Amino acid sequence: MIKVVKIGGNVVDNPELLREFVKDFAAMQGMKVLVHGGGVMASQMQKAMGMAPQMIEGRRVTDEETLKVVTMVYAGWCSKHITALLQAEGCNAIGLSGADGNAIRAAKRPPVHVDSIGKEVDYGYVGDVTAESVNAGFIYSLLEKGIVPVFNAINHDGEGNLLNTNADTIASSIAVAMANYRYRSPREVCCRCEECTHCSDDGRLTHETELIYCFEKDGVLYDKDDDSSVIPEIERKRFEELKAEGRVADGMIPKLTNAFKAIDSGVGRVIIKHACNLLKPIGTTLM
Amino acid sequence: MIKVVKIGGNVVDNPELLREFVKDFAAMQGMKVLVHGGGVMASQMQKAMGMAPQMIEGRRVTDEETLKVVTMVYAGWCSKHITALLQAEGCNAIGLSGADGNAIRAAKRPPVHVDSIGKEVDYGYVGDVTAESVNAGFIYSLLEKGIVPVFNAINHDGEGNLLNTNADTIASSIAVAMANYRYRSPREVCCRCEECTHCSDDGRLTHETELIYCFEKDGVLYDKDDDSSVIPEIERKRFEELKAEGRVADGMIPKLTNAFKAIDSGVGRVIIKHACNLLKPIGTTLM
Repeated sequence: MIKVVKIGGNVVDNPELLREFVKDFAAMQGMKVLVHGGGVMASQMQKAMGMAPQMIEGRRVTDEETLKVVTMVYAGWCSKHITALLQAEGCNAIGLSGADGNAIRAAKRPPVHVDSIGKEVDYGYVGDVTAESVNAGFIYSLLEKGIVPVFNAINHDGEGNLLNTNADTIASSIAVAMANYRYRSPREVCCRCEECTHCSDDGRLTHETELIYCFEKDGVLYDKDDDSSVIPEIERKRFEELKAEGRVADGMIPKLTNAFKAIDSGVGRVIIKHACNLLKPIGTTLM
Repeated sequence: MIKVVKIGGNVVDNPELLREFVKDFAAMQGMKVLVHGGGVMASQMQKAMGMAPQMIEGRRVTDEETLKVVTMVYAGWCSKHITALLQAEGCNAIGLSGADGNAIRAAKRPPVHVDSIGKEVDYGYVGDVTAESVNAGFIYSLLEKGIVPVFNAINHDGEGNLLNTNADTIASSIAVAMANYRYRSPREVCCRCEECTHCSDDGRLTHETELIYCFEKDGVLYDKDDDSSVIPEIERKRFEELKAEGRVADGMIPKLTNAFKAIDSGVGRVIIKHACNLLKPIGTTLM
């Protein structure tokens, strides 16, 4: 089993929650990958330096100076701070951008028409990634040694440029890439455990892969005003019903749509839960 | 042969020189490690954020806010920018702090008496490293795969804290650690080439290791006002003579003393040269 866990700014910005999460993540058994966002520190840094952060549809317009700031914040402080905290908990973490070990390549996003503002936007140094952009062999070589990759949202284009990328998409791309990565067992046989690995066509093995999105709520809520109304499991048919009923709306629709895409592409299941419940069976499982 | 190359701020701050250096470093054959300083960007950032950089005897007093800035600059922008440039030249680099893969642990420096100002100074989050602090096995596992570690000056104490460390000392500590690292060849025999490896007592092998300090001059100058007066080779006895003659003075004395210490500890030779001469036989070789 390979678990890919994504945490957002609400964890990174909250020292107490971060320490609690780090303890739980370090204690989580098996192969694992962490993907983290950067929180509000990038915008604070921009403001402190007299720059005006510009967000369009939740994405940061990233000119050259902004790229420096987000690289400093995400790949510098956030990455190394989280890595040092994990090391202190006995988890042999390694903080990586996509440039490191050529782990993830991104494609610079061309200018796009944004409906909500009715015009074309050049996001600048912003990149898009897919599962094919992920160097699964390199990530697997770390996992095999018990090293835990900790990815930030900075990737590269292979031509010397860094690109600011969406951390949710990085997490799902890594999960899909790892779910489809075929490795040879040293024994060249399937271990036949029910959970961990299964034989694939060519005699190589693949790992079951789980994608865990930590966010601000305990899971997908049936009633958005009732935090206790977490839906434990959602299958695709139920997702369509919940959308039709208006129970799942706004930002949750693309989140769940992307989660089901990851499942279609080989990820075993996607779990949506609060960062402080990492080891607890509280959350919504999509499958 | 393992080459450990150190570049300072004069390279990191100069886009043209950095690109030239990166091309040369990427073209350098064999196993290699890069260690980089951070340049003036950290001080610029501090000033932009309304902080007053405080340097005592060339070392930065590093309080909590300063630690965030140097981590962002050294381990964030500088590390990822250099790594992306190397990737574009076909060099599979990985930007690392000491926390990453538990590569280098540092010990927090206790308050010390500084003679030049006649009082005790608490440098704050400043660390010291030795060859014993270096996880040579981890570094070697990367080198073996053709991955090139690119170290910045941020290390960790294993208890969750990051520490700002001297990049020259990191470079010599890595060189000494790698020179003493005993590995098993897949063939379990010495390759018997003259240059690369030689048998050690227990049948394992060690790599010849070279430490290259890039700095502002072409090498150690016989006449400090004549840039063409580079001394090609200095053995220990000659070093003592040059000191007695006053030819080597000021900042060069600790630099060369540390270089000879590295040689005493197993490093094959130390070369002092200009960053733009990396592949050219111009410089001073200490041995």
